[in-house]
Amino acid sequence: MNFPHQVTIVEVGARDGLQNESIVSTQDKIELINSLSKTGLTHIEAGSFVSPKWVPQMADSLEVMQNIKRHSGIIYSALTPNLRGLEQALEAGANQVAIFTSASEGFCQKNINCSIAESLNRFQPVIELAQKNNIPVRGYLSCVADCPYDGPTKPEQVARVAQTLSEIGCYEISLGDTIGTGTPLRIARMLECVQNTLPIHQLAVHFHDTWGQALANIYQALSMGISTLDSSVAGLGGCPYAKGASGNVATEDVLYLCQGLGIETGVDLPLLAQTGWMISQALGRQPNSKVSLALKPN
Amino acid sequence: MNFPHQVTIVEVGARDGLQNESIVSTQDKIELINSLSKTGLTHIEAGSFVSPKWVPQMADSLEVMQNIKRHSGIIYSALTPNLRGLEQALEAGANQVAIFTSASEGFCQKNINCSIAESLNRFQPVIELAQKNNIPVRGYLSCVADCPYDGPTKPEQVARVAQTLSEIGCYEISLGDTIGTGTPLRIARMLECVQNTLPIHQLAVHFHDTWGQALANIYQALSMGISTLDSSVAGLGGCPYAKGASGNVATEDVLYLCQGLGIETGVDLPLLAQTGWMISQALGRQPNSKVSLALKPN
Repeated sequence: MNFPHQVTIVEVGARDGLQNESIVSTQDKIELINSLSKTGLTHIEAGSFVSPKWVPQMADSLEVMQNIKRHSGIIYSALTPNLRGLEQALEAGANQVAIFTSASEGFCQKNINCSIAESLNRFQPVIELAQKNNIPVRGYLSCVADCPYDGPTKPEQVARVAQTLSEIGCYEISLGDTIGTGTPLRIARMLECVQNTLPIHQLAVHFHDTWGQALANIYQALSMGISTLDSSVAGLGGCPYAKGASGNVATEDVLYLCQGLGIETGVDLPLLAQTGWMISQALGRQPNSKVSLALKPN
Repeated sequence: MNFPHQVTIVEVGARDGLQNESIVSTQDKIELINSLSKTGLTHIEAGSFVSPKWVPQMADSLEVMQNIKRHSGIIYSALTPNLRGLEQALEAGANQVAIFTSASEGFCQKNINCSIAESLNRFQPVIELAQKNNIPVRGYLSCVADCPYDGPTKPEQVARVAQTLSEIGCYEISLGDTIGTGTPLRIARMLECVQNTLPIHQLAVHFHDTWGQALANIYQALSMGISTLDSSVAGLGGCPYAKGASGNVATEDVLYLCQGLGIETGVDLPLLAQTGWMISQALGRQPNSKVSLALKPN
């Protein structure tokens, strides 16, 4: 057991979460991010500069990011699929950007319509321009356990693509179990393999709770020394009762686990839970987080 | 890591689950148990012989147990708080009975209105009569992590009461995190302490998912060699959105975890999930299980 003393939570609710929900108003998004900024979080994913044709939920990311109240010491990041997206992210004042590819060819083709190798080539100019602007680039790697098209992903393949993301300039690789089918020992084998090529401080985990395994997987990852966790306030990113809901793991549940393990998060759980109740109300539904519901007044 | 090759699931949905739900018909209960009997389960908790004044949901346990279609090789057990309950359980043809006490004085007082020591004394004649009838007795021990009245429970206290339960004749002690607040390292310390006095094959774990920690806790318990797990089909035992829902961990989620870890359960997950959809429909709500929802056709 090699638990970290403290972890960094990358709060993805306002982007990865809301892009998989019904559309909320620009004002609701701004209030969400402003409220998250008061909880002690140090990294808030705030928007995505993809085509509004594909992701209408994120069409107002420029307006959102230009109107939030920024706190020093907090990274406000954005997803940027291409140069045009990066230029918008720079205009929006993103402190960091993220690119994304897949560890499985099938998902890469269906999701971004190119091979993994092509996707990495496409991101080269994005990374170069970001670096010219002193903007760190994070890499999302999806399907690290299973792919909905190709089946199980080989840990060696995850390690290979993760290493390439690092080589082309990503300071951190977020390893995503996109469909949430992974279980702890498979996650352990994948992480062991990736750790053979990349230092652990460059790795984050990004789990979805679609099959209820996210906290067990996070517990496994923590025991191996992983100290950066992606999670989503109120479990934003999929209604609990929708078929195939993407179901990001809830930040509240992760904070509670870390607290119980004696791991510092720097985040105020009651404040974060309140923020989750607020955005859940805007979405007209209950939070998708057991801890949030357990804390919620009647 | 000391994972077992196979585990026994004690399916508590028809008792511990349904006693915390709105009342369903006797016929629905019989169909639930008959359907569970086809899934490969070997232990089904089928009823409770407590006063219907306190637990009206279980008032028809005699009728239920006399009308189910029994399969050889399946234990149909019942909860028996006293001699009268045991006599009814014998009449109902229970293959096993269970008694219950608490690891915390506060909960014992509020729940069964006596001290832990008094509760153990009261159970002596129940155990004696059960043994005369060759009926094995299981012991439920609640509040093994925290008590809603007394706060954290000392692992040494859990070990002490568990040992006494064994000494007075319980063949197995089910260690219950009744309010679901435990996290894996605290569960590990508790289990280590109990293992100092009792062999691991005498121990079961009984987790509630009220704070989302159940699967992480089960993963921890499995890694220590625990091979008997209590769980509840469809997460019966508390609506997911009710404040203070007791929230038994869902059998479907436990089966999926075990499958992923390569641990045999002997239970057919799709069949069990179907059973969960059936009883959830009778209750007029969705299953409280991520795996069940992920498997459910639209």
